[in-house]
Amino acid sequence: MARSAQDKIRLGLFINPTGHHQAAWRHPSSQADASVNLKHYIEIAQRAEAAKIDALFLADNQGMRNGPPEVVGRVAQYVAGFEPLTLLSALAPVTSRIGLIATGSTTYNYPYQIARKFASLDHLSGGRAGWNIVTSGTATREAENFGTVEHPEHEARYDRASEFVEVCRGLWDSWDDDAFIRDRERGIFSDMEKLHVLDHHGTYFDVRGPLNVPRCPQGYPLHVQAGTSSTGKDFAARYAEMMFVSAQSLGNAQALYSDVKARADKFGRDPDHIKIMPGLALTVGRTEAEAREKFEELQSLLTLPVALNMLSMRMNGADLSVYDIDRPFPDDIVIPPQSRSGFEVMVERSRREKLSIRELAIKTAGSLAGLTIHGSASQLADLMEEWFRENGCDGFNLQPSTFPGGLDDIVTLLVPELQRRGLFRTEYEARTLRGHLGLPRPASRYAGN
Amino acid sequence: MARSAQDKIRLGLFINPTGHHQAAWRHPSSQADASVNLKHYIEIAQRAEAAKIDALFLADNQGMRNGPPEVVGRVAQYVAGFEPLTLLSALAPVTSRIGLIATGSTTYNYPYQIARKFASLDHLSGGRAGWNIVTSGTATREAENFGTVEHPEHEARYDRASEFVEVCRGLWDSWDDDAFIRDRERGIFSDMEKLHVLDHHGTYFDVRGPLNVPRCPQGYPLHVQAGTSSTGKDFAARYAEMMFVSAQSLGNAQALYSDVKARADKFGRDPDHIKIMPGLALTVGRTEAEAREKFEELQSLLTLPVALNMLSMRMNGADLSVYDIDRPFPDDIVIPPQSRSGFEVMVERSRREKLSIRELAIKTAGSLAGLTIHGSASQLADLMEEWFRENGCDGFNLQPSTFPGGLDDIVTLLVPELQRRGLFRTEYEARTLRGHLGLPRPASRYAGN
Repeated sequence: MARSAQDKIRLGLFINPTGHHQAAWRHPSSQADASVNLKHYIEIAQRAEAAKIDALFLADNQGMRNGPPEVVGRVAQYVAGFEPLTLLSALAPVTSRIGLIATGSTTYNYPYQIARKFASLDHLSGGRAGWNIVTSGTATREAENFGTVEHPEHEARYDRASEFVEVCRGLWDSWDDDAFIRDRERGIFSDMEKLHVLDHHGTYFDVRGPLNVPRCPQGYPLHVQAGTSSTGKDFAARYAEMMFVSAQSLGNAQALYSDVKARADKFGRDPDHIKIMPGLALTVGRTEAEAREKFEELQSLLTLPVALNMLSMRMNGADLSVYDIDRPFPDDIVIPPQSRSGFEVMVERSRREKLSIRELAIKTAGSLAGLTIHGSASQLADLMEEWFRENGCDGFNLQPSTFPGGLDDIVTLLVPELQRRGLFRTEYEARTLRGHLGLPRPASRYAGN
Repeated sequence: MARSAQDKIRLGLFINPTGHHQAAWRHPSSQADASVNLKHYIEIAQRAEAAKIDALFLADNQGMRNGPPEVVGRVAQYVAGFEPLTLLSALAPVTSRIGLIATGSTTYNYPYQIARKFASLDHLSGGRAGWNIVTSGTATREAENFGTVEHPEHEARYDRASEFVEVCRGLWDSWDDDAFIRDRERGIFSDMEKLHVLDHHGTYFDVRGPLNVPRCPQGYPLHVQAGTSSTGKDFAARYAEMMFVSAQSLGNAQALYSDVKARADKFGRDPDHIKIMPGLALTVGRTEAEAREKFEELQSLLTLPVALNMLSMRMNGADLSVYDIDRPFPDDIVIPPQSRSGFEVMVERSRREKLSIRELAIKTAGSLAGLTIHGSASQLADLMEEWFRENGCDGFNLQPSTFPGGLDDIVTLLVPELQRRGLFRTEYEARTLRGHLGLPRPASRYAGN
């Protein structure tokens, strides 16, 4: 499956208030009070839009970072800040083209509310909303904020997630696209023949509907997913139109890419309709040396307890104090059934790269997800071009090490380099997020009836 | 309790997309596609802010208007549009002073999410968020969108609402106001001594906390309430800082006013810290004749089935087909326990004004709540001044019959008249919603410990 010269790399911008590097908030190129500073987010969004980035992405936990006070008091990520959907709604009127993707849990939410809020964001933004569908991990003890101590099992969460998505899609089809006539003369506001009551009764949900929002500009908000367990990949292959993945090498990325595309094909979907986007935790410099210096400056601001806590978060809250941190993970380690992919990835990586837990923690503290990398614009563009040309991905989810400084380096150095190579757009070709990605607008289940 | 000359009327603007009159969408002074038109809302918000209005207010139902297709297809209200919190978030960056009040149900929500979203809106807007606390009625069949057919009983709903509010306040106190130090040099981001875990275990909720949002600019978002049953008034007296009421005469308003203020005193609160705001469904003209003409034009666009359905909504979905509509409500009518205040108010009114159900429906179709009134600016200002001076209210919740036309009439005719009389501000005196209302910022429960 060779790429044509017209094919372009898709770029998402994964926003983490002060930056993806765990010590970013201590660095002068970040905004320390970012997490409650709307002006900061508006600047980021407008800068990313000027660079023609496809979409902004916000991760989410419905709970606070867990850990000992001497760690939690020293970090800025997943502590306290804006709620993603209210924040993206505030960014809608101050931007006009860039996609707006927020995370929403199918474990700790009502489908009616998720369907409604994302539909509302899609209308507010003129067709730019995306929903990153997560089943929630255990790292932030979300369960205990929602009346239960027992976080449901991995498989049960995905089972619920499938029904949740089906309910949302049913609700999004409540009104046909042309249901609202608004004929003042005849006094007919809506055509009731074009209203559909879902009346869903399933294993996890009973939802009558209809949704009290007209059908979205995009039909459905874009479906995004990030789970990399086998169940997670099947879920993505069935539903996702964009998939965030974490790959440490081209080989790794290619294996994942062909696996997910094959699964999509198996589910009867066009494999091109699911865009695979590995995370790139980037530090860009004018030269390789400058980039290395910036990255090492950030690493020097890091402490071991913070790096270990971050590794624990990547492993869904695993208690690392039970291991000897100067050795790799033990051979007989048991992978907890609650939340698999993050845990497995880190254990495998420690073995593959022969890293002690301490080394792994320090090495991966550059970001909670993705490949941590630094270099000149041309070096990074080489890697991106290779991954893209060699079917390792359809694009990347960019994770600047700091905000706003690290983003500035990306938009002034890296994006122009990609554009010079003809790998990235110089103008938006469309008005909606689906349009940017070349994805079709899904028809209603009732269309043509 | 005489008012000083410095006392000012508080003004809220109750937004109903096309207008409060049921036939507004058919009238040329409305925007027919208002419910999904962000530009329309931005213009309304900016116009209201230019007039120095205290706050915008959005009602809400988590379900669609109920009724036969020949009614629902002919109305624009409570059919389909933006979700209130996403909409107000989008209005935050394009306004700077006006308060932003959204409705949130304590029956069909998780407290963690409500606490988080309103805190986020308060941060996004720099201290302008208000939460209108409702327990949900039955008119839009919300229960059936949330997995249950049985809407809980009135008293149980208020019992749950009290615990819900207490949990939210506990969550809003998770972080002390000065918890975030962000000391780059020492690497201390937050002072963990200033973080508090709620660990609530009650009748309806188990919520550990802490909230992942810093303490709000306003301490807590403003608490707003509208229930007028005895339980509702006690709830308001305990928690509300602004109360929306529906009064048909000065005597009626005065009775409610003194009742609620006395109840607030009984709960140990300063009665001045709960602002009573009757709804005024207004049609303003340059002359009385012009106002009457506008109102009658709207009334002429109304049909009886639509007016009857609206009356049913005001009575929480009561089935009116069982009554002879050419007579008042029967003497032996049974008030359903599910949702009292709306039902009672309409039955009483039909008796007091000796109106048949048909007459009542037509007469009240001017708005879902409040006193429907039309007149010149000076006539309306006379009424408002009298109610305000004679302790009938602290201000009004303005309900223009149409948007944007009816709002234009209010800001160009009525507001200047109130300002000329020294009854309304000509400049904002504060930056937060609590500031506009002269209300104190609540201290955290942990303050001074």
